[in-house]
Amino acid sequence: MMPASRVAAEEGMWTFDNPPLKILKERYGFTPTKEWLDHVRLSSVRFNDGGSGSFVSPHGLALTNHHVALGQLQKVSTPEKDYVKDGFYARTPDEELKCPDLELNVLVSLEDVTVRVQGAAKKGMSEEEGLKARKAESAKIEKESQDATGLRSDVVTLYDGGEYWLYRYKKYTDVRLVFAPEQQIAFFGGDPDNFTYPRYDFDMALFRVYENDKPIDSSNYLKWSAHGADDGELVFVSGHPGSTDRLTTMAGIELQRDYLLPLVLKTLKRRLGALRQYAALGTEENRQASRPMFYLENSIKAFTGEYSGLLGKAVIAKKQKEESDFRARVAANPDWKKAYGPAWDAMADSTRRYAEKMKPYRFRSLRGSRMAEMALQIVQYVAEVKKPDGERLEGFHDSQLESLRFRLFSKAPLYPKMEEVLLANSLQESLEDLGANDPFVKGVLGGKFAGDVAREVIAGSKLADADLRKSLVEGGEAAVQASSDPFVALARKTDPFVREMKKWYEDDVESVESAAGEKIGKARFAIYGKSLYPDSTFTLRLTYATVRGYPMNGTEAPPRTTFYGLYDRAAGFDFKPPYELPARYLERKNALDLSTPLNFVCTCDTTGGNSGSPVINRNAELVGLIFDGNIESLVGTYVYDLESNRSVAVHSAGIIEALRRLYDAGPLADELQGK
Amino acid sequence: MMPASRVAAEEGMWTFDNPPLKILKERYGFTPTKEWLDHVRLSSVRFNDGGSGSFVSPHGLALTNHHVALGQLQKVSTPEKDYVKDGFYARTPDEELKCPDLELNVLVSLEDVTVRVQGAAKKGMSEEEGLKARKAESAKIEKESQDATGLRSDVVTLYDGGEYWLYRYKKYTDVRLVFAPEQQIAFFGGDPDNFTYPRYDFDMALFRVYENDKPIDSSNYLKWSAHGADDGELVFVSGHPGSTDRLTTMAGIELQRDYLLPLVLKTLKRRLGALRQYAALGTEENRQASRPMFYLENSIKAFTGEYSGLLGKAVIAKKQKEESDFRARVAANPDWKKAYGPAWDAMADSTRRYAEKMKPYRFRSLRGSRMAEMALQIVQYVAEVKKPDGERLEGFHDSQLESLRFRLFSKAPLYPKMEEVLLANSLQESLEDLGANDPFVKGVLGGKFAGDVAREVIAGSKLADADLRKSLVEGGEAAVQASSDPFVALARKTDPFVREMKKWYEDDVESVESAAGEKIGKARFAIYGKSLYPDSTFTLRLTYATVRGYPMNGTEAPPRTTFYGLYDRAAGFDFKPPYELPARYLERKNALDLSTPLNFVCTCDTTGGNSGSPVINRNAELVGLIFDGNIESLVGTYVYDLESNRSVAVHSAGIIEALRRLYDAGPLADELQGK
Repeated sequence: MMPASRVAAEEGMWTFDNPPLKILKERYGFTPTKEWLDHVRLSSVRFNDGGSGSFVSPHGLALTNHHVALGQLQKVSTPEKDYVKDGFYARTPDEELKCPDLELNVLVSLEDVTVRVQGAAKKGMSEEEGLKARKAESAKIEKESQDATGLRSDVVTLYDGGEYWLYRYKKYTDVRLVFAPEQQIAFFGGDPDNFTYPRYDFDMALFRVYENDKPIDSSNYLKWSAHGADDGELVFVSGHPGSTDRLTTMAGIELQRDYLLPLVLKTLKRRLGALRQYAALGTEENRQASRPMFYLENSIKAFTGEYSGLLGKAVIAKKQKEESDFRARVAANPDWKKAYGPAWDAMADSTRRYAEKMKPYRFRSLRGSRMAEMALQIVQYVAEVKKPDGERLEGFHDSQLESLRFRLFSKAPLYPKMEEVLLANSLQESLEDLGANDPFVKGVLGGKFAGDVAREVIAGSKLADADLRKSLVEGGEAAVQASSDPFVALARKTDPFVREMKKWYEDDVESVESAAGEKIGKARFAIYGKSLYPDSTFTLRLTYATVRGYPMNGTEAPPRTTFYGLYDRAAGFDFKPPYELPARYLERKNALDLSTPLNFVCTCDTTGGNSGSPVINRNAELVGLIFDGNIESLVGTYVYDLESNRSVAVHSAGIIEALRRLYDAGPLADELQGK
Repeated sequence: MMPASRVAAEEGMWTFDNPPLKILKERYGFTPTKEWLDHVRLSSVRFNDGGSGSFVSPHGLALTNHHVALGQLQKVSTPEKDYVKDGFYARTPDEELKCPDLELNVLVSLEDVTVRVQGAAKKGMSEEEGLKARKAESAKIEKESQDATGLRSDVVTLYDGGEYWLYRYKKYTDVRLVFAPEQQIAFFGGDPDNFTYPRYDFDMALFRVYENDKPIDSSNYLKWSAHGADDGELVFVSGHPGSTDRLTTMAGIELQRDYLLPLVLKTLKRRLGALRQYAALGTEENRQASRPMFYLENSIKAFTGEYSGLLGKAVIAKKQKEESDFRARVAANPDWKKAYGPAWDAMADSTRRYAEKMKPYRFRSLRGSRMAEMALQIVQYVAEVKKPDGERLEGFHDSQLESLRFRLFSKAPLYPKMEEVLLANSLQESLEDLGANDPFVKGVLGGKFAGDVAREVIAGSKLADADLRKSLVEGGEAAVQASSDPFVALARKTDPFVREMKKWYEDDVESVESAAGEKIGKARFAIYGKSLYPDSTFTLRLTYATVRGYPMNGTEAPPRTTFYGLYDRAAGFDFKPPYELPARYLERKNALDLSTPLNFVCTCDTTGGNSGSPVINRNAELVGLIFDGNIESLVGTYVYDLESNRSVAVHSAGIIEALRRLYDAGPLADELQGK
């Protein structure tokens, strides 16, 4: 008999091929039809800058978070026109601002290719050979699909290799900015309030999607709810959660806790420190650094929450019990024991190997500088495209090249002085963590100071010029080898080390984990069936839940906040940063109905990447916009806790109220409300 | 060399003879003069219902919390006029409502009587004899003082017997209600929000003190600050903290954690459960039970916070370190080691003995019923007054009789049906915890059901009549012995058990702890001098601190809240209880300046009993009114933590704004503001 699902109520980031129909019917008396599911899927949009969104009008209008839009907002801003600080509203189509390198994806089909991918690894192959074979087969499937359909085609690994799916996306690259509020109100409360609740953030932005210079006909869009989210109401979130470790073995969790998270946090804090020094130099430096600092602070707070969660007893005890139960069931069946039992030990061995070489794996590289990243991509691009598709490094498969080129040739501005600071920081960190005698450190520094190397590279490089990058890529290996650009030279020196460590990782870690993961995945299916959901992979997922407060700080957090609370929190801190309000919020306060809901919480199981996801009701009407999780949700990377894990959303009524009363954006509100 | 004080910054409930002048001068450049200290002391008022307050006009107007006033509010209410629910405002002196049994005290002098009290225990006396001798001497001092001055005179034990002080109080018993808001706004957020912050409570009430049917001339009163408390400002709280265990030994703390707190919580929860059943019977029953339920919920939340704190590692580790350091210093000096060293073992032995007999000590009695308490006091009163003062039970000394009679002969209404429920619950608890064969249980139940005994007692008793109680007391032992009132009969049966357990406690626990405490107290003075403050004892204390937010829930709690926040929290919960607002708050909302501060937090070290204490600035002007501590402060019984321990206060500006705009109480606001 199949045991009851291990999945808690309201938990789960479900794939659209396997929605939790049984639970929905039993608990809520609701059964989404195929049409409902298709409509929601086709209304959902992936923002490849790292977020989610949805179509909210038939004319290509796409809603997401301000903090998802932030990268593009900064790229279209200048020292003279700071749309991050001042916000933006295109009153006419002509005023809509084209984004330099934003790609949106809509998932148009899903196809199970497990048999093909798993079957590629033949009996008798080593684990390294097996991994290569699966990767080659995946690349082949992607290429075939792209050639046949013209759609972006990704083979997605689910359930740690228990399943492989081909996801085909309609891709949009002409995306224009329509509306964004001031960052101060989108991110009211700043880093302190980030990942907390009660919250009062107007974290939204609107884009319009074009093809052939015309707004697309987005007939699959989410209608605006007349009322918005109510306490206790059943809601759904359709979005692209980035990465979770819910199915990870204890060995993997311990690796995170004892090695990876501490190291990552150290790196991020160091980088943030470097950027803060840079930002302190002046207003323009501060403007340039504000976006990367925002993302760094965000990551640091998120990882700190994860790390603290793992240091507590409760999470570890829960995961340990899950794994013990699972392994006991496997051990109880002789066939399973033989076939799947050793996989856990293999995983543990692999994490041990990874922990040992983690520092050279991470620090024999250039990190944090966008120009350094592009330099390395150029050097690798020209080498990789010469190989058969199946043998290339991840990221350089045929099906991935178009998106890569779109980003690589972006005309978005780069800030060489800031890049210099980041490059120097990265080199210095490598020196400190690997030592002066490390071959990579010797190779890239050659005995010089990290700051001097960075200064020379940036001073001599022309790589900030998108045309130069394009000509290097188009010139192929010869052009790249011949280039005297010092950034290209630095990337050429770095490339062999990156490749060496990548190969070590693939052979000694990834291939083992891939094979063991597939076994554990099969064991999981054998025991739990598809009552489980796969870890998130920045692919489309559906979660369901209710709007609900939670126990907090000795009392209850309310299901929603209102504009009243925004003014309370600002006044409570004397309007000091990060609690100051944009001028219009003071000048037009009396125009607002302050009791209008601004933010709310629901039990939806979301994580980073879900930012910008629509919250919808049973009628697939938009009632809110996910923009965050509460502090209790951060350990959600590993476990979901119904009692206190909450997603935080902007309320649909608050969006309309602000657009109409504060931003004179009545026409935009009309378009959202279908008026 | 004397070691640095163990007292943390902004910690301390200082007696007025030993204010922290050095710290205040060094850290804040402020030195309160003798006049300042005397003025603040004489402006401070003890509410013998269990709270603090202050004079806030020259005409006897006294400010305290609504929840301190609650007992009297209920006593002056009737089923027809529910001042608890609807609030009260006397627009003219004639309308002021005389309270049935409220006694206020003002501390008019302090005198060190340590030498006399400690000297009463002569060499060669046993510990029991020593305790008796000290008690007798204290009673003598009180009596002498009362006879000489006519003032209420209490000998107060400080530093666990390290010092004894004679506190003389001016006593007021003609106290009239002037103003109280609706309980719903005084206690907005109810039990969930109790002991939490951010908070939005208008927890204030005003009384006027009379003598000879005229308002007293309270020339020592606190002027109202024009501006109120500001973030970061130095403030003081003068009030009557009830009980702390900061100087308690580890053995004492473990006794609390492992025996006393679990047992007390069980008793309180059981009593609350009984009252809830009673309250569910109807509106009038609910009105009667609401005050005791309020206090029970409050106690349960407070003790739960204490208990949780003690279950955590941090508090225990801190206390363990304090004690280890202290004992190591004692052990390092051969004289001290000999004289004081054994005291800790004696304390540990005594707590062990207490733990063993804790149940009979607590449960061979009648608890929770006010009528049962009075019945027992009557039976004991007539027996005790026949003895020499020094030999009487605590509570029956000559100096205490007047206050006792004032409460005992109060005309405040009693609710027999509710008393029956409480008596039945108490008897049933004794049965369950002591067993049917316990002599007390046998004696009071005589084999009957607890509910039947309670019903018979209440049905036959006339003790709800204050005149009967008076005539019994005045009739002396003969009248009490002859009384056929079943409540008196029950009390007569109970009395020997109570006396027996009290004697056991005095001989086996208290006398040991008193002697050991005195030794530890002397050791403490020898090592730390008076850089420490004594545990609180519901006597007047001065604390200093700053207005300051604190880290909470992953972000910062603001230094203050505003009326905006009140409406946000109400609307966030859809105005559902306990977040509903009195009608005037909805009808008159537009009259309010919503940005007016409503509550604020400061680092002042306060505890239960401080409710109603004034918060004052350096000019001794009133800037706020303490009404609570945050959830982090509950473990403050044992330790003070500057980072997150906060007192919560009503802001002086919020009081004026509400009085003027919502309550049409302009004349009262004028009196407060001296207009």
